Amino acid sequence: MTEPELTRDAFLDGRVLAWQPRHGYRAATDPVFLAASVPAQAGQNVLELGCGVGVASLCLAARVPGLVLTGIELQADYAALARRNGAENGVAFDVVEGDLQALPPALRARRFDHVIANPPYYAPQGPAAQNAGRDRALREDTPLAIWIDTALRRTRDGGYITLIHLAERLPDLLAGFAGRASCYVLPLAARAHRPARRVIVQARKGARAPFKLLPPLVIHQGEAHLGDGDFFTDTARALLRDGAALDLREMAQA
Amino acid sequence: MTEPELTRDAFLDGRVLAWQPRHGYRAATDPVFLAASVPAQAGQNVLELGCGVGVASLCLAARVPGLVLTGIELQADYAALARRNGAENGVAFDVVEGDLQALPPALRARRFDHVIANPPYYAPQGPAAQNAGRDRALREDTPLAIWIDTALRRTRDGGYITLIHLAERLPDLLAGFAGRASCYVLPLAARAHRPARRVIVQARKGARAPFKLLPPLVIHQGEAHLGDGDFFTDTARALLRDGAALDLREMAQA
Repeated sequence: MTEPELTRDAFLDGRVLAWQPRHGYRAATDPVFLAASVPAQAGQNVLELGCGVGVASLCLAARVPGLVLTGIELQADYAALARRNGAENGVAFDVVEGDLQALPPALRARRFDHVIANPPYYAPQGPAAQNAGRDRALREDTPLAIWIDTALRRTRDGGYITLIHLAERLPDLLAGFAGRASCYVLPLAARAHRPARRVIVQARKGARAPFKLLPPLVIHQGEAHLGDGDFFTDTARALLRDGAALDLREMAQA
Repeated sequence: MTEPELTRDAFLDGRVLAWQPRHGYRAATDPVFLAASVPAQAGQNVLELGCGVGVASLCLAARVPGLVLTGIELQADYAALARRNGAENGVAFDVVEGDLQALPPALRARRFDHVIANPPYYAPQGPAAQNAGRDRALREDTPLAIWIDTALRRTRDGGYITLIHLAERLPDLLAGFAGRASCYVLPLAARAHRPARRVIVQARKGARAPFKLLPPLVIHQGEAHLGDGDFFTDTARALLRDGAALDLREMAQA
């Protein structure tokens, strides 16, 4: 892609800068919330399935030092941007171009402490896709069950899979993990007293802890959109701007 | 049972009075929340699976006039109390003693506008069961999947199944309805910022509407138990005392 087709966007108050297509699928808040919720510790390895331009992995690296980060991305232009974004942010991010339904042998031979993903979806009320890249990045070409199967196979026993997805897919997400992992679910609601739009599902492979449905993370203040400002809640602001962690296990103990 | 073994308890600020065993399984708030969430209209028929002493059906009758109410209950003493409670509350409540895994032919021949249930469960942190009746009423002798299958079979197309159960069983609840009904889930949390303890799952048979995860109903005010008062939130008080409706479909549109 030529430079005019790209924008360079700031995440975590500028701690992460990422090139992404101006008109294609664009990372916004979902990968930042995803990164905040991954309970990774220094020295662990992390695989991001469908990493796009790498925003989730780079935000995670900004919070947790010393991670060994790998991404796989189907679309060559996004994979190239993810490599460039890793280099320009000073993060060692090994990006593999490939299909998660046919992982390269080098990846198939590895197990990870954490597997993360923001699988594609059509946002039901989002703007129409404007080009093929955005279209593919939003469209569910690979069934969600394949994402979950692949994530489970690449996670070590006791390791964590953390996904962010549409709330309306929660039944499919839980079905994918049934009998294979214990799940915590964090609903994300645009405002208080609204249905959840997104869910973060965190699954611990092979664990048998009871399922937990956590209190929702409310993203915006007030009962309605009030203007062009972001009006984030304090919690959302801490996650999006300050790079705070979102500790689902602590929330489950409340 | 002799009278000294029973208590007569008030629900909905005394609009419903129900005899129940002093030391057995005792209806508290769950059947009242269940009744509040059933979108029944005058003239419709309702089947309650495992009706116990009938509190959910009687609370529903107190809010919606002109329902045709049927209950099935495995334990003879609870079934007898349900009949007595129906009669003493002036509600025509047809209570069948029987096993939902072997419904009487007269019930198997019918379809209902609504099927409701509060299936038994061991409350993970509740007091130990003190007698066999309570033990059976709390214990999951009949697998949850059987409750759901039975509810689906007895509901007309487009009719509603409304269940209240432990939040930790949400994956099993959703699995039971997968592909057969569209589900709305209302989490019930003891307090704000706590994981859900219960969920109300409302499934519309044969419908294909997207799954909805609703904002939680918070039952108690404040961050901790402050004393012997109930300290209900305004919403919980309206449901428990005033007999207000809990309109899940309206909540889903917010």
